[in-house]
Amino acid sequence: MTVKTLTVARDLLATNKQAAAAIREELRGRGVLGINLLSSPGSGKTTLLEALADRFAGRYRMAVIEGDIETERDAERIRAKGVAAWQITTGGACHLEARMVGKVIGEVPADLDFLFIENVGNLVCPASYDLGESVRLVLLSWPEGDDKPAKYPQAFLTADALVLTKADLGPYLPFDTGRAAAEARSIKPVLEVFTVSALRGDGIDALAAYLVGALERLRSGRA
Amino acid sequence: MTVKTLTVARDLLATNKQAAAAIREELRGRGVLGINLLSSPGSGKTTLLEALADRFAGRYRMAVIEGDIETERDAERIRAKGVAAWQITTGGACHLEARMVGKVIGEVPADLDFLFIENVGNLVCPASYDLGESVRLVLLSWPEGDDKPAKYPQAFLTADALVLTKADLGPYLPFDTGRAAAEARSIKPVLEVFTVSALRGDGIDALAAYLVGALERLRSGRA
Repeated sequence: MTVKTLTVARDLLATNKQAAAAIREELRGRGVLGINLLSSPGSGKTTLLEALADRFAGRYRMAVIEGDIETERDAERIRAKGVAAWQITTGGACHLEARMVGKVIGEVPADLDFLFIENVGNLVCPASYDLGESVRLVLLSWPEGDDKPAKYPQAFLTADALVLTKADLGPYLPFDTGRAAAEARSIKPVLEVFTVSALRGDGIDALAAYLVGALERLRSGRA
Repeated sequence: MTVKTLTVARDLLATNKQAAAAIREELRGRGVLGINLLSSPGSGKTTLLEALADRFAGRYRMAVIEGDIETERDAERIRAKGVAAWQITTGGACHLEARMVGKVIGEVPADLDFLFIENVGNLVCPASYDLGESVRLVLLSWPEGDDKPAKYPQAFLTADALVLTKADLGPYLPFDTGRAAAEARSIKPVLEVFTVSALRGDGIDALAAYLVGALERLRSGRA
């Protein structure tokens, strides 16, 4: 990259950081846990949110901001679960930025527990953009392979928890959960790791309990 | 994006276009077919190249330039097949650029039929960067879902052929090849579509024949 490009990139990230800080402050003030979901396309972010919607129904209030380059498809899937959803289409941009989230955050109801932000499907670029979340989840699906953390380190380095998805495909694929977890933790030692099958519901309780714990820490001022 | 950012992006793409044109001219002059592979992480680009290496062994000469953010893993897998491979690690960048390819192209042997360039696993950013290839393949694996073309249109718009991979997982996943192909062709009407299982070898002959046809057209000056 040229010096000019590096300067613009640094300016963009600084501007994003300010917008993210404002979102984080607003969400914390409301007692809402912001959760940013990162992964490759097709790793199961929306299906995981559908499973969490079922798990939280009647117990916790959630809403979802969906980020996609094009289409309203993911927001429609979430709304079909009776959960409020806002679709941000980036029109070509490879990641969400805090200012995009900031534009819709005023519409999100105040009486909420969890605000999920599903990023654009991309294991690279979204990792560099803080969206004002309190918890960042990175998803890695079994079909993608257990060798991905070292190849895409930034997403794992910046995450709080790794969710290994599509575990129902286990019998048909070589995937070593121990290897994936160890490799991710060699990049980020304090990473929580969950293994789930959102389709079958396996592992969803443990992940939900982790998010409830983070919500309680946020509200008690311990995070 | 700000005006400054847009200007830098335009400058970068213009510089990339010049470097790509030089690579394309050099490869055509040598009678080598350049092929750029795009997909999400874990869609099976390297496994497809391993299958093509087996198919072409003793019949056509191939070499591979591997693009990854970190690690030499993919180049090592290709070399294990007895095929020459060069690893470009981008050190954080989300796509290959023509100047990166230009730096290694001098080392690639002249007596070659196919030069494959495996891009960084990312269905978004690599689509904007011409690497001087003659054929661009976009891969979409069955586990990713048949709804991806409309969500990531640029990769499908700029591709010459779509390769639907991991068809061996068909019995365990909902994936409508007709829907995926129709949606991709609504974006790019003249897209060739292949369905393969690189692990089982299904569909590799048809894809190899397509590449041989493109090589013959290049050498006869018809492409």
